Amino acid sequence: MILYNIALSGNCHKVRLMLSFLGIEFEIHDLDLGTSEQSSDAYLKLNPFGQAPVLDDNGTVIRDSQAILVYLATKFGDKKWWPESSDELAEIISWLSTAANEIQNGPARLRVHYKFGRPIDFKQATDISNKVLRIIDTHLSQRIWLVGNKPTIADIAIYPYLALAHEGHLDISSYEHIQTWKTRFESLPNYLAMPGFSE
Amino acid sequence: MILYNIALSGNCHKVRLMLSFLGIEFEIHDLDLGTSEQSSDAYLKLNPFGQAPVLDDNGTVIRDSQAILVYLATKFGDKKWWPESSDELAEIISWLSTAANEIQNGPARLRVHYKFGRPIDFKQATDISNKVLRIIDTHLSQRIWLVGNKPTIADIAIYPYLALAHEGHLDISSYEHIQTWKTRFESLPNYLAMPGFSE
Repeated sequence: MILYNIALSGNCHKVRLMLSFLGIEFEIHDLDLGTSEQSSDAYLKLNPFGQAPVLDDNGTVIRDSQAILVYLATKFGDKKWWPESSDELAEIISWLSTAANEIQNGPARLRVHYKFGRPIDFKQATDISNKVLRIIDTHLSQRIWLVGNKPTIADIAIYPYLALAHEGHLDISSYEHIQTWKTRFESLPNYLAMPGFSE
Repeated sequence: MILYNIALSGNCHKVRLMLSFLGIEFEIHDLDLGTSEQSSDAYLKLNPFGQAPVLDDNGTVIRDSQAILVYLATKFGDKKWWPESSDELAEIISWLSTAANEIQNGPARLRVHYKFGRPIDFKQATDISNKVLRIIDTHLSQRIWLVGNKPTIADIAIYPYLALAHEGHLDISSYEHIQTWKTRFESLPNYLAMPGFSE
């Protein structure tokens, strides 16, 4: 199994977390951003969107971090990280959409601006961030994990860009329920921090 | 079963299509946008994001169009519209992410601008649209449906905002594989057009 990876990408962190939680051995292929490997013909064949992560499991090629989480959870997860019921499955999918939409367009975009200098619509990204953070904090005020009573791929999909929020100059210290959930998540067995993070 | 609905929303169209394909009877609750019902306390309890659609199935409340598709497909779909394998499931999820991210930030955002006058980052929405249309067209050049060899919720999630692309002043007539797929989709039994569309 090969993970096409960018070390500093929160989307790739989701997959590294999942692989670590499941104890799956894998080979890592770090994309060479200096030569724009992500835009090379060879890579665009794996993922026409030119984004990381991509997982190649013996020829089965999956693009998109949320899709890779679902693939690993259903193929290797033995019901851990995956819901019991149709109701919980739907709830998980709604958080995967939030990860693909609001988290990507809010906290992740602010980070891409401040850390990598990309121009963004600052007001839009800030508004989206404040809204989604408030909603997640309220949601977590009444529960331990995002869906049901055990950690699922919803938590893995939402975690990285909240943990990286400060790199987008977002102060999330006042969201106390997010803070508690974040600490809880980081205490899970085989949790793996982003490179360069000691917290 | 109650669908909280906005008639002109492509995201709500996904759910109406799915309910029609499955032959499920439901009650429709059209949100009163004149009084901003979507921002009322009562509605924010159903969906703190203040968006439509929401499905209330006897007290099980699901927000997010992608999540509702998964809920209906797994609970009532009897394997139709849902994949057979973990590989295909992952592929479907990758298209649900594309629906929540690129389709929403591209064709759907351009439509919201031209049809409803909302200010947007025009260049960004146009670039995203052109990229995702090209990728989907290439993808469909080698297959009949987005995933596997039968229609799935991936097709339902991607269809509405491509069918509405012209309302965002996007000309998709040159994407021949998208055109063929669109016609094929519209020929499915119990297909339901957007209100006001005769095509």
